[in-house]
Amino acid sequence: MARYKLEIAYEGTKYKGWQRLKQTEETIQGKIEGVLSRYCGQEMTIDGAGRTDAGVHARCQVASFDGPLLDELALRTAMNTYLPEDIVIKSVTQVGGRFHARFNATEKTYVYTIWTAAYPPVFERKFVTVVTERIDLDAMKLASRLLIGQHDFKGFSTDKTKKSTTRTIKKIDFEISPEKVKIYYTGDGFLYNMVRILTGTLLEIGMGSMTPEAILEILAKKDRSIAGPTAPPQGLALWHVNYD
Amino acid sequence: MARYKLEIAYEGTKYKGWQRLKQTEETIQGKIEGVLSRYCGQEMTIDGAGRTDAGVHARCQVASFDGPLLDELALRTAMNTYLPEDIVIKSVTQVGGRFHARFNATEKTYVYTIWTAAYPPVFERKFVTVVTERIDLDAMKLASRLLIGQHDFKGFSTDKTKKSTTRTIKKIDFEISPEKVKIYYTGDGFLYNMVRILTGTLLEIGMGSMTPEAILEILAKKDRSIAGPTAPPQGLALWHVNYD
Repeated sequence: MARYKLEIAYEGTKYKGWQRLKQTEETIQGKIEGVLSRYCGQEMTIDGAGRTDAGVHARCQVASFDGPLLDELALRTAMNTYLPEDIVIKSVTQVGGRFHARFNATEKTYVYTIWTAAYPPVFERKFVTVVTERIDLDAMKLASRLLIGQHDFKGFSTDKTKKSTTRTIKKIDFEISPEKVKIYYTGDGFLYNMVRILTGTLLEIGMGSMTPEAILEILAKKDRSIAGPTAPPQGLALWHVNYD
Repeated sequence: MARYKLEIAYEGTKYKGWQRLKQTEETIQGKIEGVLSRYCGQEMTIDGAGRTDAGVHARCQVASFDGPLLDELALRTAMNTYLPEDIVIKSVTQVGGRFHARFNATEKTYVYTIWTAAYPPVFERKFVTVVTERIDLDAMKLASRLLIGQHDFKGFSTDKTKKSTTRTIKKIDFEISPEKVKIYYTGDGFLYNMVRILTGTLLEIGMGSMTPEAILEILAKKDRSIAGPTAPPQGLALWHVNYD
């Protein structure tokens, strides 16, 4: 037996998200486990670093699994041969038995891409959210600074768990080009729907229907109903997972 | 009557190329003329700067047409509403009556994207050509320098015209990143299939089955049969058209 780490890229458009559900539902985890199980000749399960929602993409998801001793390059080639074209295994690496893709992740970065050009996207159309209103990027940047640090982000989540909703956002970076705005969120972890609600709230602020100071109120009142809407999934991608 | 310039982006995957053919064939020009004709209430024709082949994309194709006086922004909005999602009008501008998208073009840039990573592409999969062999980029760059300048490129074309096959390539730039290599070709014009045959030949050189000096022989002998294969269309995009 050995433990392995997978680096995975996928276009989430056609899937019900990362996490395996019923057999009839198409999920990324389900697809990968199916191909891996056939390769290994036994039922295999994998643990992903982050459970991306339906329609959300990943440039670099990480997963770990225990399996028989196998050739890393041969496994990658076989999996990429049998996986659908919207899921790709970027690397397979044998790791120590204490490595766990989710529990050992110290930092995750998600990117949300907003299409701001006066015409629709062609090449990026499945990977962006189109915003036709003019948005005030300075107000959005100002608001984003109020999110940095350790806070209870309950107001920015639809998490129903009773566990802690306190997380630390380490940085929020804006990458602005003529056609689009990318917002990179880096933190120690994100609650269910958190990045999409953060983005929906920043967009409300950018469009002037909320002020940057609303961030402080949402953090203080921990009330989802006063935050902005959940931004659509197709603009979101898991960008990077960091391990110490 | 007035003359207009269109800037157009498209994903060529589903189309038989730019140029309008029979009514039953799906072409970019045909799609745009159809929507424009309905908008104007009369049969409209447009002239494109470059006739991209089936499966070839454009980040910025340019076309011109004569039509009734109309509002530029309203036309763009209407066209983007009725065109399919893989064709977008980036701008509509009224221009002088002497402007012609093809005849006035002084310089065109095409980009060819080669996927070189050890795993397949996900997000870029419709816009790249995958090369799994190791390629020697230094040899390709060296060969590309032999193409610069005014030459008879008959050996790099399947053009059947009796017109001049002499063209000037102004520059060939390589943009190298961990997953892909982009080759930008800028010249005063390109023959039928020329960029794809140039790329196919550079790839043969990169893979070591031809030497960089083969370029000089193909130019001298003007013999298509000794050049490399025509690289696949999906890696190619019309990048920019310049007007003085």
